[in-house]
Amino acid sequence: MKDRMNHLLILSEEAPAYLDLLQAAKLTNLRITALSDTRLARTKGAECNMVLGEPGLVHGLLPYMTNLEWVQSTWAGVEPCIQKNSHRDYQLTNVKGIFGAQMSEYVFCYILMHEKLARVHHKLQQQKRWEQHFPGQLRGKTIGIMGVGSIGSHLAQTARYFQMQTKGYTFSSTNCEFIERYYHGEELVEFVSDLDYLVNTLPDTPQTTHLINDAVLRAMPPGAILINIGRGNVIEESALIDALNQQTIAGAVLDVFAEEPLPEDHRLWQTPNMTITAHISVISYPEDVVPVFIDNYHRFSNGQDLKYSVDFERGY
Amino acid sequence: MKDRMNHLLILSEEAPAYLDLLQAAKLTNLRITALSDTRLARTKGAECNMVLGEPGLVHGLLPYMTNLEWVQSTWAGVEPCIQKNSHRDYQLTNVKGIFGAQMSEYVFCYILMHEKLARVHHKLQQQKRWEQHFPGQLRGKTIGIMGVGSIGSHLAQTARYFQMQTKGYTFSSTNCEFIERYYHGEELVEFVSDLDYLVNTLPDTPQTTHLINDAVLRAMPPGAILINIGRGNVIEESALIDALNQQTIAGAVLDVFAEEPLPEDHRLWQTPNMTITAHISVISYPEDVVPVFIDNYHRFSNGQDLKYSVDFERGY
Repeated sequence: MKDRMNHLLILSEEAPAYLDLLQAAKLTNLRITALSDTRLARTKGAECNMVLGEPGLVHGLLPYMTNLEWVQSTWAGVEPCIQKNSHRDYQLTNVKGIFGAQMSEYVFCYILMHEKLARVHHKLQQQKRWEQHFPGQLRGKTIGIMGVGSIGSHLAQTARYFQMQTKGYTFSSTNCEFIERYYHGEELVEFVSDLDYLVNTLPDTPQTTHLINDAVLRAMPPGAILINIGRGNVIEESALIDALNQQTIAGAVLDVFAEEPLPEDHRLWQTPNMTITAHISVISYPEDVVPVFIDNYHRFSNGQDLKYSVDFERGY
Repeated sequence: MKDRMNHLLILSEEAPAYLDLLQAAKLTNLRITALSDTRLARTKGAECNMVLGEPGLVHGLLPYMTNLEWVQSTWAGVEPCIQKNSHRDYQLTNVKGIFGAQMSEYVFCYILMHEKLARVHHKLQQQKRWEQHFPGQLRGKTIGIMGVGSIGSHLAQTARYFQMQTKGYTFSSTNCEFIERYYHGEELVEFVSDLDYLVNTLPDTPQTTHLINDAVLRAMPPGAILINIGRGNVIEESALIDALNQQTIAGAVLDVFAEEPLPEDHRLWQTPNMTITAHISVISYPEDVVPVFIDNYHRFSNGQDLKYSVDFERGY
């Protein structure tokens, strides 16, 4: 494919930033069209053989992109592009390895707020009450991380920085130096049984649906906090609502949900000890994504395997 | 002093925990009396030549402790014992090097809450509103640390872990590997001029009073956050209230105050963008303090200089 002209469609709300960064990179044999929405994308898209874009925008264009060879997603989650009836006659790659730091900041924000009793102190301040409720500390607490890829590894590293104990639950991998003990398969109940914090980073696949169910929640200690930054399907939400109402666990922090946006009448909004954020735990910064694209562009041009290739069947 | 019998008074709300740890250490030539309050301390105290205790409790006993040679404070702050009219005919040591991790947890809890818009998301949840307000990240933000002792160094290390830029303001020291640039003396206004976060760790001494005044607050960027975990005298509180009301800076997090407990009618309680906690950012855990005492006990028994000796005139 060397020396052949390529035509890239950038399809992202941040198209101008992506265009600036890619033009500065002066990639050879590359023509670029940059669009912030799908209005002109059907006609322009037909000319392009590669896309750098948001899966939710790219998905609707797939039927019209007759010359498509490669889609580089700007996000980690590519669910819109891997639905059963979607076109699959192209290579799909996502971004990995760039979200660990941001996810760590989100997760440790809420872990620290819980340890430091931030909401207790906020209420006392509103009542102008000077009361010394002393905080807990992370040192010696135990975190369990479901899914130890680049995000889970970064969480484990941050946990070790704060002198926490770390446990990992994976399909089979055991290669993260920051995880002190690994669990797999049927060991999920044992894995959660002594945790202070359980963090899910697993993606949405048929194998992950409702992994965190009633039995797992009941196996967690009553003081434990559940945090989900992976995908909403992993938690059986009705079981979590019951667990929080019955104080089976102490709290939950969810950034992802089975249905997004979370419907206004969903019971989760007002479940006690529930913290909800609107799928904002990480942003794809163009300056982080572009190096992934450039590396893959060189691989594509040289006929090499692309990095972070998504298996349509497996779903990640 | 070798082989001479010593008699230690433990005077702390956590006296039973201290006694357990010290008995387990089996120190030679040591008799121990452990009291949780000062009720019996006057008569018992007269027999003791050393104290391990909270400065606020120890201070009232000093006139009655006619055999006193050494007080090991369980706290870093020893203000009650260094007032001008206090007894000073003994060696006073405090604890250092054991609070860095806890202080880091407190400071980064509030830094992360600010970056991650935790209060914005909390309000949206209360209104059942799904709105994606994307958070900032610590990477690339700049933190300025006033006072780079063991606590300031630990803060700088944590900041570097989160890929922040670090600046230090000290009397003269420049030896912390995690501080990228140092400032001293008259450079305070320059030091604060590009900060995202200004953290004070300085103690209460005549030299530190009102270091953070109107001119310094005006030199800070409008998006900056001030955090005080040192002592309250360092901030000119009336100037800070003005700065927050006029949005000269974006917010403040105070754990220490010129007057503690903060009076119920103090204007700080309701100043906009003000976060108040009741001097709870660190706890002296007996398991952290006891190794400091034991090290100093061996030094005392061998006639060596004690560690973390407090200069009554200098105040730290």
